[in-house]
Amino acid sequence: MSYSALEQHFEQLHHLQHLGAICGWDQATMMPAGGNEARAEALGTLAVLCHQQLQDPRLGDWFTAAEHDALNAEQQQSLAEMRRAWRDATLLPADLVRARSLAGSRCEHAWRSLRPANDWAGFLPLFEEVVSLSREAASARADALGLSRYDSLLEQYEPGMRSQTLDGLFGELGGWLPGLIAEVQEKQRFETVLPLQGPFATDKQKALGLEVMGWLGFDFHHGRLDVSAHPFCGGVSEDVRLTTRYDEADVAQALMGIVHETGHARYEQGLPAQWRRLPVGQARSMGVHESQSLFFEMQLGRHPAFLARLAPLLAQHFGEQPAFAADNLARLYTRVKPGFIRVDADEVTYPAHVMLRYDIERDLIEGRLEARDLPERWDQLMQHYLGLSTKGNYTNGCLQDIHWTDGSFGYFPSYTLGAIYAAQLAEAMQQQLGTFERLIGEDLPAVFGWLEQKVWRHASLLSTEALMTQASGQALSAAPFERHLKQRYSG
Amino acid sequence: MSYSALEQHFEQLHHLQHLGAICGWDQATMMPAGGNEARAEALGTLAVLCHQQLQDPRLGDWFTAAEHDALNAEQQQSLAEMRRAWRDATLLPADLVRARSLAGSRCEHAWRSLRPANDWAGFLPLFEEVVSLSREAASARADALGLSRYDSLLEQYEPGMRSQTLDGLFGELGGWLPGLIAEVQEKQRFETVLPLQGPFATDKQKALGLEVMGWLGFDFHHGRLDVSAHPFCGGVSEDVRLTTRYDEADVAQALMGIVHETGHARYEQGLPAQWRRLPVGQARSMGVHESQSLFFEMQLGRHPAFLARLAPLLAQHFGEQPAFAADNLARLYTRVKPGFIRVDADEVTYPAHVMLRYDIERDLIEGRLEARDLPERWDQLMQHYLGLSTKGNYTNGCLQDIHWTDGSFGYFPSYTLGAIYAAQLAEAMQQQLGTFERLIGEDLPAVFGWLEQKVWRHASLLSTEALMTQASGQALSAAPFERHLKQRYSG
Repeated sequence: MSYSALEQHFEQLHHLQHLGAICGWDQATMMPAGGNEARAEALGTLAVLCHQQLQDPRLGDWFTAAEHDALNAEQQQSLAEMRRAWRDATLLPADLVRARSLAGSRCEHAWRSLRPANDWAGFLPLFEEVVSLSREAASARADALGLSRYDSLLEQYEPGMRSQTLDGLFGELGGWLPGLIAEVQEKQRFETVLPLQGPFATDKQKALGLEVMGWLGFDFHHGRLDVSAHPFCGGVSEDVRLTTRYDEADVAQALMGIVHETGHARYEQGLPAQWRRLPVGQARSMGVHESQSLFFEMQLGRHPAFLARLAPLLAQHFGEQPAFAADNLARLYTRVKPGFIRVDADEVTYPAHVMLRYDIERDLIEGRLEARDLPERWDQLMQHYLGLSTKGNYTNGCLQDIHWTDGSFGYFPSYTLGAIYAAQLAEAMQQQLGTFERLIGEDLPAVFGWLEQKVWRHASLLSTEALMTQASGQALSAAPFERHLKQRYSG
Repeated sequence: MSYSALEQHFEQLHHLQHLGAICGWDQATMMPAGGNEARAEALGTLAVLCHQQLQDPRLGDWFTAAEHDALNAEQQQSLAEMRRAWRDATLLPADLVRARSLAGSRCEHAWRSLRPANDWAGFLPLFEEVVSLSREAASARADALGLSRYDSLLEQYEPGMRSQTLDGLFGELGGWLPGLIAEVQEKQRFETVLPLQGPFATDKQKALGLEVMGWLGFDFHHGRLDVSAHPFCGGVSEDVRLTTRYDEADVAQALMGIVHETGHARYEQGLPAQWRRLPVGQARSMGVHESQSLFFEMQLGRHPAFLARLAPLLAQHFGEQPAFAADNLARLYTRVKPGFIRVDADEVTYPAHVMLRYDIERDLIEGRLEARDLPERWDQLMQHYLGLSTKGNYTNGCLQDIHWTDGSFGYFPSYTLGAIYAAQLAEAMQQQLGTFERLIGEDLPAVFGWLEQKVWRHASLLSTEALMTQASGQALSAAPFERHLKQRYSG
């Protein structure tokens, strides 16, 4: 049976990816610096091998023949996901793949020193090359997939999502968000927030983090917590490697970072064992992945009931202090302040950063904006959404993110889609199971059981649209996100 | 140039082995238990890939064509080592490889419960299958290599070594060893040795171990120390992963274990950077590898001058106690006591365990001994060398080692060859640089510089014989080992 041959072939690919995931984790957490060059070479060889695995000339025949195999519905979907992975790996001419990879490496590498130097002029020619090759790739993908150029890139990260839908969702959001931001700032202007008094010893932060991960149902039989410069959730479903970074002056950030990554981790740990070795058994999309981390961090983690549970734990680990009072924690963790930097943004202003990037990258790829005009558009949109000027400030403006430097256009919307999905899931869950006040206080396992049933166990067996509709009984909508933000921040 | 094609091909293999080494280390040190099944599958796939890489049909043509390439002497040797790796991977028919691997896994798996159950009868049929297939493999190798059956297996671990040479070396050793063992026991009978008084906290043991590794020149920029159930030295030359195991009741063993593994590690770290990605840049043989760990552990680590340096360090980490006196440490670390278990044996009785196994495995493979007669021969030899009876005691007799269960015949001699090489190197070094008393006290870097020049940097560019002769100015001989043991234990 050709389908079996395909399964075996993709399982082998999965095993190679497993080795890459663990060695990548090791590189970020354990490896002594002197091992880096050899590791980079080894991982480079693995990347080539994985690519070759997807370009195996037998695959075409197997896919054709598998159409005649008697497959059940799940196998059909499995076949479709294998085909998608194959298509993405073979769609572009090899020359273009090489040229893009080269231009991306060059631009990203230069960016690491050009950004701190605020050097837009130095960055521009390298970036123009990346944009030009990304447009070329987008055209090739668009032709093959019957999509617009930008949608063909979006499809890589958020299958099924189209800019038309995004324009609708983000248009709606953009309508009420600036007003909400202004309103919340006004409301919080006279609020007193006590800062947490450090220092917070690393080992105590770690003990606290592990305890909170325990609450959140992280399975330590299938994962662990370590330290890396840039926190991530890596490894494989059977062995999830979560990382954080401790700052002894600040416990709040690392702790909420752990809650966030635990959301990613539980999604991975909850993927169905039967399908884990195949593409259909992987997480649905970047947006759905982010919805789980944001569900944990924003819906649960910054909920007053959660912070009320956290308060005595903080006191227990670090001793009593007035700032650990539950209501102070709630104010601290919901503070809204427009700023230049996306990764430092709060729950309310974050979508503005994403919509700005979406607007720019869509137009860049569709040819409606040129790279040289990017700073001007950036400044306009920052003024519009957050009332901040970035004129001449490239470091904290359009040079702040790594994503575009290597041509990862189409990724940014995932962050805010994740927030939208999370809010819709949270609203539906509370309608079905009762309020978070009660669930967080009395029955966290019910929350995770619901997510497992509605999201995790479906992996890529359902489309995002079907997943959201089945889970919430509603079509995808930004309305629950609006209700959530307004209720929490201006309620 | 075909040689270049071969280099590229083998470098790729090296990168895959790098991933396997790091994931293997992770499995033993970091991995949560629930990750084991997925890891085993991933590493299994990698093993198949590595094997395929060595069976690439283009290799034969490349090797033939490379004979006409203009190569310098080092490239010639590099070519020979690639050819050896290729030959070893392709020499046996695939059916036999599969059958051996299957029988070996089955026997090893059963052994894990049969050994504690002292169940020789249950073990025998599985073991007979392993012996039979190993003989078959040995015959095939022997025919292809023009060697005797046992020598063809020995060649895998100790290239160039023959049983004729071993018979000579071990025959000599066997002549004086039983007498020495008896003499030392008599001498030590009335010696007072104070046991070290614990407990010794794990974190303090680790700090001490790291300090001693620092003395011994371990490069922490290219390696690290962790914990595993069975200590080993893994990773890659650029990133050596050394492990140990701590027992809070006993600091002596973990500490000397670290010294031992540091010897392995420095050999790996000292391999020539230029050749590391190719077979010729790997360690020469199992025996030479063991010679470095035993040089560190036995020649240096148990030397009175080393223990005199260690004494104040122990007191510093764990507080003063009479047992930490240098002369007491020297007595403790040179205590001789015949016992059943090889891995627990002291420096003097260890070779007896190895010679016994050599005698048996050689005859098993050459067809001069049958598996069913193994316990009787074991008992005879234990009586002869160590005066101990193992009648009916399989657990602590012929079932104690893992090596034979999966058919690794030909490996055991490496341990005592290592001790012989180490003694010959130590004697030559002292003739050239002065006594260990002085070197350990004043100039340890000179010791490592000498090893680097004479052993490490040659990797597999020289045969073991050339390596030993060039380093010591003498042909391989057991005489320095005899002088070393007699001087240390009955001097």
